[in-house]
Parts: sequence; C-alpha cells; structure tokens
Amino acid sequence: MFVETQEEVPEIREPLRRVGITNLRTVAKINWKGREYTFLPLIEVTIDVPAEKKGIHMSRLVESITEAMSEAVEEEVAKVHSSLEELGKCVIGRLEGKHPHKRAEVWIKTHLIIPRITPASKKTSYEPYDVEVGVIKNEDGSFEKVLRVRVVGNTACPHAMANNNGKTHIQRAIGELEIRAPFEEEIPLEEMIDVVESSFSHPTYTLLKTVDENAVVQGMYRNPKFVEDVAREIFAKAKKKFKGKIHVKVISNESIHKHDVIAETWN
Amino acid sequence: MFVETQEEVPEIREPLRRVGITNLRTVAKINWKGREYTFLPLIEVTIDVPAEKKGIHMSRLVESITEAMSEAVEEEVAKVHSSLEELGKCVIGRLEGKHPHKRAEVWIKTHLIIPRITPASKKTSYEPYDVEVGVIKNEDGSFEKVLRVRVVGNTACPHAMANNNGKTHIQRAIGELEIRAPFEEEIPLEEMIDVVESSFSHPTYTLLKTVDENAVVQGMYRNPKFVEDVAREIFAKAKKKFKGKIHVKVISNESIHKHDVIAETWN
Amino acid sequence: MFVETQEEVPEIREPLRRVGITNLRTVAKINWKGREYTFLPLIEVTIDVPAEKKGIHMSRLVESITEAMSEAVEEEVAKVHSSLEELGKCVIGRLEGKHPHKRAEVWIKTHLIIPRITPASKKTSYEPYDVEVGVIKNEDGSFEKVLRVRVVGNTACPHAMANNNGKTHIQRAIGELEIRAPFEEEIPLEEMIDVVESSFSHPTYTLLKTVDENAVVQGMYRNPKFVEDVAREIFAKAKKKFKGKIHVKVISNESIHKHDVIAETWN
Amino acid sequence: MFVETQEEVPEIREPLRRVGITNLRTVAKINWKGREYTFLPLIEVTIDVPAEKKGIHMSRLVESITEAMSEAVEEEVAKVHSSLEELGKCVIGRLEGKHPHKRAEVWIKTHLIIPRITPASKKTSYEPYDVEVGVIKNEDGSFEKVLRVRVVGNTACPHAMANNNGKTHIQRAIGELEIRAPFEEEIPLEEMIDVVESSFSHPTYTLLKTVDENAVVQGMYRNPKFVEDVAREIFAKAKKKFKGKIHVKVISNESIHKHDVIAETWN
Repeated sequence: MFVETQEEVPEIREPLRRVGITNLRTVAKINWKGREYTFLPLIEVTIDVPAEKKGIHMSRLVESITEAMSEAVEEEVAKVHSSLEELGKCVIGRLEGKHPHKRAEVWIKTHLIIPRITPASKKTSYEPYDVEVGVIKNEDGSFEKVLRVRVVGNTACPHAMANNNGKTHIQRAIGELEIRAPFEEEIPLEEMIDVVESSFSHPTYTLLKTVDENAVVQGMYRNPKFVEDVAREIFAKAKKKFKGKIHVKVISNESIHKHDVIAETWN
Repeated sequence: MFVETQEEVPEIREPLRRVGITNLRTVAKINWKGREYTFLPLIEVTIDVPAEKKGIHMSRLVESITEAMSEAVEEEVAKVHSSLEELGKCVIGRLEGKHPHKRAEVWIKTHLIIPRITPASKKTSYEPYDVEVGVIKNEDGSFEKVLRVRVVGNTACPHAMANNNGKTHIQRAIGELEIRAPFEEEIPLEEMIDVVESSFSHPTYTLLKTVDENAVVQGMYRNPKFVEDVAREIFAKAKKKFKGKIHVKVISNESIHKHDVIAETWN
Repeated sequence: MFVETQEEVPEIREPLRRVGITNLRTVAKINWKGREYTFLPLIEVTIDVPAEKKGIHMSRLVESITEAMSEAVEEEVAKVHSSLEELGKCVIGRLEGKHPHKRAEVWIKTHLIIPRITPASKKTSYEPYDVEVGVIKNEDGSFEKVLRVRVVGNTACPHAMANNNGKTHIQRAIGELEIRAPFEEEIPLEEMIDVVESSFSHPTYTLLKTVDENAVVQGMYRNPKFVEDVAREIFAKAKKKFKGKIHVKVISNESIHKHDVIAETWN
Repeated sequence: MFVETQEEVPEIREPLRRVGITNLRTVAKINWKGREYTFLPLIEVTIDVPAEKKGIHMSRLVESITEAMSEAVEEEVAKVHSSLEELGKCVIGRLEGKHPHKRAEVWIKTHLIIPRITPASKKTSYEPYDVEVGVIKNEDGSFEKVLRVRVVGNTACPHAMANNNGKTHIQRAIGELEIRAPFEEEIPLEEMIDVVESSFSHPTYTLLKTVDENAVVQGMYRNPKFVEDVAREIFAKAKKKFKGKIHVKVISNESIHKHDVIAETWN
C-alpha cells in the first residue's frame, strides 16, 4: 500500500552498526525487591542495518519501548522488570518479533534516589545518583550489559594539607564507574554507587544538621585524597567486587582553580 | 519578483516584542586600549514586529552582523569597535538602514581571557571569564546596555569553621553580576569582573605553584564566607562603583552536599 | 551548644531577596485526578534574609522538602498533593514553622509524560513535556505561582512555500509558555501544553506509523507558519484562556541555517 | 622545602592511565596558510601515573599550556603552530622537560568559522563548525592524533516523500566525523568538514537571501536522505579520502517527533 523506502537497496552499500532512536523521554516502572519504582528515563534503542537495506523502520523501535513500558505499568512489573537492565532486555525481546536485526542495543538513563542515614543525627537523607544501563544483544545472540553510575562526593587535597599545617583546599568531586559484563553477572547499581561513594574523602548528604556537618567536615580532614587516590580506590574495590571490564573516571571541581582535574583508568 | 510573505497581514494581529536570530556563532574583533582581541561569540539579534506585519526578513539581521564583523576585520576595528557593546551598537546601526523597527536588541556572549599575577610566585596566569553584553535600542531611540560577567571563585564556610576548631568545608562558587544602564555609562567588563572576583573567600588561578597554592589556601581560611556574604559584598561594591540596575547571583557547588546553594539580590 | 554563625550580624548590612538551595534532585509524588504520578524533579527553595542576619539555616529548607515529600509518599498524596504547585505550597507551609522569613519561593522542574492518540492509526503515543512550577509567598502573605511548559513542535516556512511551488523548509521548533498568576487561579499545566502544541504547523508524536507520518506531513504543508505565527497563536490563545501575566517564546531549529530563529512576546 | 605528597607511594599501588587537567579555557593562536587565527579553546592535558607515585604535579601541565600559548602569541605562531594538532604536540613537547611520563594526551576543543559562498546570490556567509583535536604520545614515543568535526546540515525524508506526492518532513541534522590516525597523516579539518557537509540533503548557510533560500529548499527536495544515507555517504567518502580509524555519527532532530534518530558506524 505504501512505498517502503527503507527496504530499498541503498546507493552506498555499507552496513551500519547502530541505527535507531535517541533522546526519547518516557516513563518506566521497575519492581525492585518487592517495591515499585517509577522513572522518567531518556532512552536510546539501536539495531544494525545490513548493506543492502536503505534504512530501518523507526516506529517499530518506539513500539517496542511503548509496549514494554505498558506491560510494566499493568502487569509485568511485579514479575519481570526487576531492574533497569531487565527492562532493557524486555525491549530487545519485543524488537525481535518486529524488526529483523543481528545486533541490538538499548540504553536507559535516569536518576536513582536512595535513602541514606546521616552520620551524626541519624536522620534520613534522600541522595540522588545518575545511572545509565545499556543492554547489548551481540550477533551471536549473547547479551552483555553496561552499567554506569555517577556519584557526587569530595576531595580534600593531601598536598596542601601537608604544607599548610592541616589546612587544605576542599572541593566537590564527581566519580564515575562503568562496568561492562555478561548480562548474567549480578551487579546491583546500588553496590556500584556504594563503591564510588565510599572512595571520596567523605560521602555527601542532601540533609545535614550541624552535628552532621561537623562529622562530614572532620571526616574530610581525616581522609585527604587526590583525585588519583579516589580513582585508585574505586578501581581497586570494583575489581575485587565485580567481574567485567571496569572504567573509572573522577573529576574534581577544584576550589582553587577555574578548571577541573581528572583521573581516569580502566582494565 | 518573489512573494514577500513577511509583509502580509497576519491572521492574528498582535505586535511581537522580540523576533530575530539566536545561537549564531561567528567571529568578532575588538580593539581595546590599542590592542586587537578576537572572539568567537554567540550572537542574538532581535527587533519588534508590528501587529500588521506577518514576519521579519531574517537575512537582513544576519547581514547586519556579517557587515559589522567584516568592517571589524578590515578597518573599523582600530577606530570604532573599542568594546563588545560598541560592536553591538554598530550591528544595530547597520540594521537601521536595512529593516524598519522601533526596538532592537543585540546580545553577544563570549569568554574573556585576562592575565593575572599569582599571589606568591608572581607568575602570569591566564584566567577565563564568561561575559555577555546586550545593547538595546528603545522605542524612543535611546540606547541601554546590559553587561553580565560570570566569575569562578570559592567559599570557605564560616559556620563549620566556628564549630570545628578552624576546620571547614570549602568549595567552588560562581558569582554573576549584571548591570543594566544607559549606553553612555562607562562600565568596563574588567572592573565588573574585579568586583566579583575580589568578593569570594579568595580568587582562583589557573596556574598555581606550591607557594601560590599555600597562599590561596591560607587566604581562604582567613576569609571564610557564606554565599550570602559573597553576594552582599558584590552588591555593595557594585552599587558604590557603578550606576544602573544591579543584579547579583552567587551559586556555591557545596562540597558536603550534592546540591548547590544560592544567594541572589537586586535593586 | 554550637555557634550559630548564621544569626550573627553581617559586616555588610544588606537584605538579600533569595537565599537557599538549588539543583536539588529528589523524588515527588502527586495525586492528580485520582491517580498517583511520580516525578524526579529538580528543586530550588529560597527565602529572603534581613540586613541584620548573616545567613540562613540551609538544612531547614532541605527538611521542609524531605518532610513534604515523605508525607507525599505515605499519606498526603491522596488528599493534598493534587498538583505540583500544591506540593510547592506544602513545602512553604512546612518552612513557616522552621525558619523565619517574609518571602519564600519553591521551584519544581520536571517532565510530564502524557498519552496522546496518533492522527491516523489512532494508537497511543506517550509524549514528553518539560514543565516548571514556581510557588511564591509574598511579603504580604499572598501566594503567586509561575507555571512554565516547554513543548516540541515544528514550523513549515510559508515564505519558502510561496516561492517554491509548495515546497518549503520544515524544522523542529520549541514553544515555551509561562504564566504568572495568583495561586488560586486554576491553570492546569496540561491545558497550557495543549495551547502550545496546537499552535505549531502540526503537533509531533513519539510513535508514528506510516499512515500517521503521512497525516503529520500533509498537515504541516496545509498549515505553514513562521515562528512569529506560532508565538502569536500561543499568546492569543493563552490570553483568552488564562488570567495572569503571560510570556511566550518560540525557537525554531532552522533546517536551512546553523543558527535558530526566535519570536518572543509578553503582556 | 615543601612536602611533595605527589612523590609518595600511594596506599593502593595501581597505575593510572590518564591524570591531569580538564575544562581549562584559554586563548590560542594558529598560523594557518600564512594567516593568523585566534581561538578560545577548552583544553584537557593528561599523563599516566605509575603505580608507585601518589600523584602528578598538576601545575606543570598548566605551565606547558601557558608557555606554548605564549610562544604562540609572540613568535612561534608564524613558524610552528600551523595547526591545532601542531599546537597540541608543542604542549606535549614542553611537558617532556617538566614532568616524567610514558604517555601523554592533549585535547583542544574549539569552533572554526569558515567563509562559504551562498548557492545563488554568491554572497559570503560565515559558517561555524565545532572541532576537537587530540594529540596522543604513546608509550613507544609514537604520536597519534584524533580529529573530530561536527557539522550542522539537514535531512529530507525519502520515505515520506515517496508516500506523499513529493511532500516530506525536513529537519536539522548533525553529522560528526572522527578520524584517528598517525600524527604524520595529513588530514585537514576543513576537508573533514567538507566531507560531512556535502553528505546531507543540502548544506546550510548562516546568510540566505530569498534566491539562496529557494536554492537550498529545492536542493533538499532533489536529494532526500535518511540519516542512514548521510552516515553511509560520510563514511564512504572519509574511507576513500583519509587513512585512519573512522567513526561516523549522524543525529537528526526530527521535525515530526520529539526525539532524535541516530545512525552510527565505524571501521
């Protein structure tokens, strides 16, 4: 009935690795340990295109997302969508019946809000973390996942401390941990966040009463760290705790400079 | 020859205040105190549209920019373009011959790089600042300007310092100063930057040898400040130094929190 | 027990209009027309500071948010938090018992996902919108609100269409509508979104089957518009439908230029 | 005299691959084909850190930049800094005398403004492009470079065109081309930009008189393309023209959707 331009043979016969939709904002629900969580993630879904096909049918990718999310809302949440990566895999599952492909990727980017207990007053503080989950179906049918967390902490400079009788410059720092692993590996985002958060001079809190503020301040001075130290600690803990390819990046928003400093490594 | 849809009467007869082009990246040159400076600014140019005209001729706004910049490159630089606001006024001048309007605005957003001397080693450090200049031609033909500077500094918290034997949390802070004044008022961006930069716990530097780092660290502890203190100092200095409508905003990227704190005021 | 530096008299006795916390990411729940919605908003809360007080107690602002959100989670959702602005007012209510002030503001920024029916296949498509709600308690105790929506649509240029036998350039455009009104005015965000979305050459959809794509394409050609036209239509509809101070801004990501065009007006 | 904490042995003995400074804004000058160009780039410089050293001396990285730029200003420009990558290599050269390392990277991110001739009126239009250049000194002393360009163009959808009697949706699209190659390979950024710009449905221009606008509009309809087509054309042209590892990414800001579509490939 309609012309299917996508099915035509393109002038330039070149296979493409990743074609699809990106920056799609939607709603998603996850049932994690018996409790339902709602997110408003940004989603990217791509598939490969063979050399002899001009394009893909983009709307089928959107349908895969919409259907997976709708089930989530209605029924599947309680059973299937036990994590962001399970949700991503479910989108790929739907895609299999809709659009031929050899390789597929789903990326889901959102915030997690986790309750924490403040160090002295023992109040509950709700802490935000940026997370991103990628689910990759390889050509051989195997599934991989990429998990990313981004945590806000701080560094107290040990060099300035050693040269200024215990005084030093302190600043906000951001730690990022990425793990690429087979889909089956159990790697909770919360544990990745803990690995990063515990590697700064001190964790940060949204709510801090004066007693808590004092505890954080004194904790930072007891634990001075370069970004290099933070990156090494995240990397060492992650290698011990998780299987997979690990990438660590720490950026410190220096309080004495207008620029940032960076430490990065991977295996 | 061509249909001029812009000149038609629109269905909805409503005058519009600001119509034009925005996010246009180009090159600009300024001759400031006998030396030529090159920028790659983002530019916005708008004019008003009367109720009975459907639209404006956008290309004439672009031509006004291009011509003003070309002159700048060739000849006028040495004579006319002695500041970003003179350049903006020159764009409006060109516009007057090209497109009828009652009101016009030109906004130019760029970075300034200013050499500074570090506090102890007395080395030269090149410091970056974000600036924005708006030139507004009002309906009565008078010209106003809006000058904005954005400076990176720091705050050392006096409350934590008082409660932790001189230890405290320190962080990067960003100070913004905006002045709206008649075009004729002499308000150098460099002096606005100085007002903001001197109001933090301490200025920051791109280059800091260990002796300088020590000086900055010790300076921050001698001068603990809330964002409130920084905002008040910028505001008080600016009111004393400059005529016009003043707006101050300070944001501190707290090292003990994941969120920021803000202090803002205006007259 | 602790030094309350905030209560000291500052060196520079200058009242400040807006002091508080910003860029705080948290979780919020709203009960809207009998159904619960979850958001992960960015929040800003500010109060004024008198000339004789050095600073504010930031943690009390955070507590006001956290408590209001906790209630939301537990019990109040079904009764009180019937909109983002009611939630904002509830934060100010909590603040009243915690921290003296004359003026207070709460700003909540999030995404709304609204189901729409596609034009031809009549499928459900989930459409994302950016919204921001500000609740302002004035010095006289009165409450105002500021409502902002940001909608992605498109423009098909009528000028190019008139000069190219019906061919024209088409592009994504973004419409923003802001209304400032007394708190009591009933102004649903959904209706503001409808006003903007219906003013483009055609609404956009996340899911479009070929029949829908055809309907959207043909609709755009039947309804060519400058950004000026879109801005005028939003403004006229909003003035007719809502009471309050109205601000409209439309930006078109031109497909024939690297820069954008803008049309803006307000009453 | 001072404690050199950086030289201590860290608790966690783990080598780090990339440690340094980032997001540093400064001024740079290049002499390209006999003419001087000024940029205000963002710079990142990193070196590796061995397992037994706690940290690096960050200020020496800043000095390498500052000195290279100063020379540039004064004298070297005319001789040495004939491109952004030569400038980057010059920073690494300075670094060699200042700080021991095995591996070093310099990244320079800026805008290029290139004059173009409009298609019909033959006026000069100044077009902006985002470029990034990375210079990498490997452990064996060999130098590699990574060149990135980002060009704004457009796509006219061939599928909608085939199904709507020549009518179609058109939108802005962004093409990115990255090449990683030995440092010696001659790969002018301008030629990379040409490869991308010539692969869209039509190039875009900052200045377009009505005759030019008509030419661009008609050109887009004569040359409908999916993002897949644009990506393939960039990739095929780049493989033919340049040696090295090539990565192509095209993102289309769909005018009928709120999300974007993406096509990406690499060799």
